[in-house]
Amino acid sequence: MLSKNKVKLIRSLQQKKFRHEQGLFLVEGEKMIAELLEASSANGGGHYQIQELLAVQDWLDQNETLLGDVQFPVESIKEVDLERISALKTPNQVLAVVKMPERNLRNVEDGMILMLDGVRDPGNLGTIIRTADWFGISEVICSMDSVDMYNPKVVQSTMGSLFRIPVSYRELTEAIFDLRINNPLKPVFGATVLGESVYDLDLRSNAIVVLGSESHGISENVGHLLTKKISIPRFGAGESLNVASAAAILCSEFKRLQYV
Amino acid sequence: MLSKNKVKLIRSLQQKKFRHEQGLFLVEGEKMIAELLEASSANGGGHYQIQELLAVQDWLDQNETLLGDVQFPVESIKEVDLERISALKTPNQVLAVVKMPERNLRNVEDGMILMLDGVRDPGNLGTIIRTADWFGISEVICSMDSVDMYNPKVVQSTMGSLFRIPVSYRELTEAIFDLRINNPLKPVFGATVLGESVYDLDLRSNAIVVLGSESHGISENVGHLLTKKISIPRFGAGESLNVASAAAILCSEFKRLQYV
Repeated sequence: MLSKNKVKLIRSLQQKKFRHEQGLFLVEGEKMIAELLEASSANGGGHYQIQELLAVQDWLDQNETLLGDVQFPVESIKEVDLERISALKTPNQVLAVVKMPERNLRNVEDGMILMLDGVRDPGNLGTIIRTADWFGISEVICSMDSVDMYNPKVVQSTMGSLFRIPVSYRELTEAIFDLRINNPLKPVFGATVLGESVYDLDLRSNAIVVLGSESHGISENVGHLLTKKISIPRFGAGESLNVASAAAILCSEFKRLQYV
Repeated sequence: MLSKNKVKLIRSLQQKKFRHEQGLFLVEGEKMIAELLEASSANGGGHYQIQELLAVQDWLDQNETLLGDVQFPVESIKEVDLERISALKTPNQVLAVVKMPERNLRNVEDGMILMLDGVRDPGNLGTIIRTADWFGISEVICSMDSVDMYNPKVVQSTMGSLFRIPVSYRELTEAIFDLRINNPLKPVFGATVLGESVYDLDLRSNAIVVLGSESHGISENVGHLLTKKISIPRFGAGESLNVASAAAILCSEFKRLQYV
């Protein structure tokens, strides 16, 4: 039987304020929990730690082995209780309350870094993190006004990539400065409407690539630090690309020369 | 004053069943309405016809010229009424009830055609239609079990591209057959995990490109009709790409050789 207090705590984690006060966030669904269990075990260096797992009995029965020697409490709950605490429209068997890691995943200064300047839509951020994981991007750095990476919709749409890709929140101008201290020639590309075509450039993946917000593009301060403006050529009548779609095309363009 | 019946009608249009019974769908927000007005006027050949427009007085005052000689009823409503009928979390000034066109937008058998085999997520379909518009894709053909193009979330996430890109629903096997009658050599590419790298292929845009569903990929029947399986190379640890991200990369790959 789920206590009132627990219901209250878990539901509060749908809000950014309470997530960060408690240092906790939610992970839901079979697929995501499987990825989380892998990331929280030896393999992931225990970076993500589960505080508590709640699941319907069916799921617990089927995953007995998986849960063999876990260190966290596991509670069997009814479907109807899962519906009460879930952030999903169609709750899916299992939910975990997870501790926000104190330190970020290992940052690599090498390789391609994606910077997101004011991305507000949770589905877009989650999809970009998933894309970053596919293309082996070193890290994702979000401006302070970007959507919270622990928003349940972000978490779900990463499809587990959240547990593998370092994501941090910083003033982007400072982050660019820091990243170039040891690497003064590291290029800083910005995706804009009026840039050089990505098809014409010899793009290498040891770069910082900045994408702007859905409605305002790259902010002025960050714009000053770009070493080159780049564009995805338009062939039709559309006014713009979705930011996650643009990120996918850019990751592919920056990585393709590495492909053998 | 918004009548009870109108509130009921408009709210019912959030459901597929009622949309198709009534032959009506919703378009919301300033940006989308601007695109709709353009598409429904001379320019768009009146393909999309507005049945009724409801807006807050502020918006009406600001758009007097735009609404100068329109043929449909325009009603001034209160913010609170807009909230009652809107499908958006944050309703935005104006909403239109629009007639579903009887015939599809002009189909072009030439050029690149995107086929979506069971795409269920409204945001993904909308984003793919938006991408298709950017890249000048000739049309998007969805399998019968794909999400409805008139779902409010699809409509919103197309950002107006819905009014420019022909989208239809068909048995994909039949559609492929029909498209190849006059064009027996038209290639049919399918995005799969185990295909040839898109970076290695000389892709031309006079092709059919099939993308599978978020969870099951391309269905067996359609799979038999592919002339080539293609893949977006993976560089990292991610298990898969979001289908709209994959569509964006493929559109870019098929179009880049056309870029001069």
